[in-house]
Amino acid sequence: MNTNDNIENDIVVPTDQLVFIPLGGATGIGMNFFAYGYQGKWLIVDCGLGFPGENLPGIDCLLPDPKFLASRKSDIVGMVITHAHEDHIGAIGYLWHDLQCPIYCTAFANELVESKLDEMGLLGRADTHVVSSGDIITLGPFEVEFIRMNHSLPEPNALAIHTKAGLVVHTGDWRLDNDPVLGQEPDLKALKALGDEGVLALVCDSTNASGEHQAGTEEDVRKTLTEVIGKYPNVQIAVGCFASNVARVESIYEAAKANGRDVCLLGRSLWRIDAAARATGYLKDVPEFLSEEEALERPRGSVLYICTGSQGESYSALNNLAAVTPNKNSVYFGADDVVIFSSRVIPGNEKAIALLQKRLAAKGIVIVTDKDALVHVSGHYAGEELKQLYEMLKPQIALPVHGETLELTYHSNMAKKYGVPHVYCLEDGEAIALNAEAPEILGEVPSGILAVDGKQIIPLNAEVIKKRRKMMDEGSAVLTLVIDKDGHVLGTPQLSTFGLLASDSADQEELLERITHAMAEIDPSRLDDDTLIKDTMKHTIRQFLNEKYGKKPLMDVHLIRV
Amino acid sequence: MNTNDNIENDIVVPTDQLVFIPLGGATGIGMNFFAYGYQGKWLIVDCGLGFPGENLPGIDCLLPDPKFLASRKSDIVGMVITHAHEDHIGAIGYLWHDLQCPIYCTAFANELVESKLDEMGLLGRADTHVVSSGDIITLGPFEVEFIRMNHSLPEPNALAIHTKAGLVVHTGDWRLDNDPVLGQEPDLKALKALGDEGVLALVCDSTNASGEHQAGTEEDVRKTLTEVIGKYPNVQIAVGCFASNVARVESIYEAAKANGRDVCLLGRSLWRIDAAARATGYLKDVPEFLSEEEALERPRGSVLYICTGSQGESYSALNNLAAVTPNKNSVYFGADDVVIFSSRVIPGNEKAIALLQKRLAAKGIVIVTDKDALVHVSGHYAGEELKQLYEMLKPQIALPVHGETLELTYHSNMAKKYGVPHVYCLEDGEAIALNAEAPEILGEVPSGILAVDGKQIIPLNAEVIKKRRKMMDEGSAVLTLVIDKDGHVLGTPQLSTFGLLASDSADQEELLERITHAMAEIDPSRLDDDTLIKDTMKHTIRQFLNEKYGKKPLMDVHLIRV
Repeated sequence: MNTNDNIENDIVVPTDQLVFIPLGGATGIGMNFFAYGYQGKWLIVDCGLGFPGENLPGIDCLLPDPKFLASRKSDIVGMVITHAHEDHIGAIGYLWHDLQCPIYCTAFANELVESKLDEMGLLGRADTHVVSSGDIITLGPFEVEFIRMNHSLPEPNALAIHTKAGLVVHTGDWRLDNDPVLGQEPDLKALKALGDEGVLALVCDSTNASGEHQAGTEEDVRKTLTEVIGKYPNVQIAVGCFASNVARVESIYEAAKANGRDVCLLGRSLWRIDAAARATGYLKDVPEFLSEEEALERPRGSVLYICTGSQGESYSALNNLAAVTPNKNSVYFGADDVVIFSSRVIPGNEKAIALLQKRLAAKGIVIVTDKDALVHVSGHYAGEELKQLYEMLKPQIALPVHGETLELTYHSNMAKKYGVPHVYCLEDGEAIALNAEAPEILGEVPSGILAVDGKQIIPLNAEVIKKRRKMMDEGSAVLTLVIDKDGHVLGTPQLSTFGLLASDSADQEELLERITHAMAEIDPSRLDDDTLIKDTMKHTIRQFLNEKYGKKPLMDVHLIRV
Repeated sequence: MNTNDNIENDIVVPTDQLVFIPLGGATGIGMNFFAYGYQGKWLIVDCGLGFPGENLPGIDCLLPDPKFLASRKSDIVGMVITHAHEDHIGAIGYLWHDLQCPIYCTAFANELVESKLDEMGLLGRADTHVVSSGDIITLGPFEVEFIRMNHSLPEPNALAIHTKAGLVVHTGDWRLDNDPVLGQEPDLKALKALGDEGVLALVCDSTNASGEHQAGTEEDVRKTLTEVIGKYPNVQIAVGCFASNVARVESIYEAAKANGRDVCLLGRSLWRIDAAARATGYLKDVPEFLSEEEALERPRGSVLYICTGSQGESYSALNNLAAVTPNKNSVYFGADDVVIFSSRVIPGNEKAIALLQKRLAAKGIVIVTDKDALVHVSGHYAGEELKQLYEMLKPQIALPVHGETLELTYHSNMAKKYGVPHVYCLEDGEAIALNAEAPEILGEVPSGILAVDGKQIIPLNAEVIKKRRKMMDEGSAVLTLVIDKDGHVLGTPQLSTFGLLASDSADQEELLERITHAMAEIDPSRLDDDTLIKDTMKHTIRQFLNEKYGKKPLMDVHLIRV
């Protein structure tokens, strides 16, 4: 990936070759954003956001920098969406203005895309089109075919991008589960037909590439949940799962029903996805879920709660359960109640989840995870499924994307083992001409990461983020100093510190003494030099705070002359 | 665990019963610090530090709060150390002043404890004693026997604490490896003898309690490393491992030697442990390691580098290898060179490690981990070893400590399954009277966590940490306003912001207009009220910054009247 300023000039993109450029999501997880160029036109696949780690204080979310495509706005023929997860659609609202192209996605994804556009006041301005698995749409020189896959939410599709220069299959997130409980089985027939037609390149997810063979199917999870819930009669039970996992929500409902429990949803995103799912024909056989108020009227132990927060997120339903004390107005869990984690641990969330579980256990709540029973299976392929896909498609070029280093490396090695002649792991911004004989890395185009910081969108390497990191560790301080024309300090200098020390009057006195002393040391002939005085003060205060507290804060001096 | 202010009065500790109180390390990982009380005397086991997560900005390390023991200083008969890991000895330098008791540990641990005391200027003041496995020392009413175990560093011991009220076995970190490559096999005979004598209580580590059966021994790792290194002739090879894992360092040396490579250490802590190991008779058959300078004189591909930084730590040797460009003065790794991760992923470090691996892979460096080959085994027991220990000791009371919730829960369930009549998972600060018939939770004593913040030691819940967290997200701002007696603003108000925005002159102008306007709105009769003016200004600036940037900074106002 290029930082924003490195690449002065774009590469020359040949118009007679099919070019692929990952602009987000090539390496690592999040921010899926891919461009295909052919005959001077550009097709976008997905437009997702990323989640900032704790090393990016104050940042709400991350976006792929759209500048390469923004400067080609009039040549963008459309954006196609593989599926409705945040890391594939979450940036649309932020970046649409830079792209201004029609959007094509399935009905379920469209519900969520439109709510994002609505939040940004773009509903009606952005041109959205609903497609279905099996559809083929023509966007300039690209014919895009939507091919049904399996994943942990409704309507995941791989895209077969047909062009005169060849066929590319872009998988999105997928697994091949021939016994899915929601939606239909994957369209193996269509995939095989693509293989027969001849696949030039396969752009394929790597999230869980090195994972062992899947332990089971969603149907197995449904059975296990039914058994586990049955083991704990007459106590409160909550199940944490990802809000978008509609199949899991249905599985939990079925498992609750089999045990005579009604189901209540706790957490806003669960209700949001529930609405999108029902609006597009899912959960048809599932009665409306209970609200928290309704659930509170039922006898304790008769309701099953589906909760957000399985990743230990603050302000989520599970975190509330860990915090709440007995009261009339909210659901309370205590000793011998049960919380089931029906989800995987997303890398990076280990500590937050461990802390949540510690707090739950401290209340005597029994915790069940996928270590105890098969209460979760992944929506990403593992084991033999990758081999199966490569055997069906037989691509000339493999382009593993979207995974941590070890997964990308594993995926590359597998692709070579499966006999793919050309295998590339690109960085974001790297452009490749897809050509079965001699694929060519063309160079790098401008790319990068933007950070949503409150109401601003700033480059990830912005000075403000660096300062925030320093301030986190070292604090900040501002001194106001009033001096007369002769450089005498008037009144008491005022010092404000943040993140440093509980104000200690003895320290303050000592500091003021040092300031007065430092002022007296300045050559009287130079007392008209504001910069000199400010620098002297910064040095004096930094030295004092470093001696005393081992801290070197960010500093400013307000010098007032009267 | 109690926060520092909750517990006003200590419980009454009966002098005729043996009492156990975890003061750190009961739940979670880190900060091992345990107290045993009998006949009015106190024995301390271990005194370790903890590592702060990224949610504790600016904090260097964590310490268990010693206040309960500090107020009983004259009754402390001694501190005994199970082994030399930081989470068992790292707090000694910080807390010795509060405890001032003799310290008993093995020779290897003593090297490291003394260097900690030296750093704090306490060497010679603290009374340290070297013991060996098999020794029995009498400390007041406690007879403490050191029993050889296995772990990932030299000289780990379990402690058999003999008293007239019964025998407690305190394991420290351990595994039972009957084929260790460093030190001798665990002293199963002594453990069995304790079982025959009758064990009242077992205080036992839980770090990896639910782990599957160990994949192998250190001897197996040695063989695998030899094979893996042999697969990559003539390229640079680095192996990342924990500095304290002297057995691993020796394994890597043997594997390098078998492949005709000399070994260079990169990283300060490796050299520190190397010195401690050699000073106490370890690494006898291993020639002095090469320094970086010496290694640079050797042909490329003829040296093997042992590196710090397998957890992705900044400023570590592996992070340097990922960053460095070709030059004459430091070791350079590039395309096709190899980095072997001979270590586990400590929970919480997943993201840092993934980032390190991504940076290494971006240079074309080949990465080998324990997913690819058996290049690491844990120093903590797993699978059947726990059962073996319980079968030997047959305790009346099991006290699982030191593990995340799921591990503690698993350990408790296992202890019950193995037939232990009484099983307790205590919180830090909870006191239990150890009595085979009816163990009794006595209540809570003052405990808590302290944070090392530069040169200060502050309570973990200190206001300054909360402010730092807020400041991370929202920034900070200070306004200096000079007014005359009539409340007219003199000159230009000065505003400093930190972590907010790149200063934008248009914004600054707008803000100053608002300030002037807000001053004009104040009832003239109240212009002598500093608090009113400051609050008005804070409100005005906060509102402006929130509208403009979505941020509500920490704020202060310096009001100058002239």
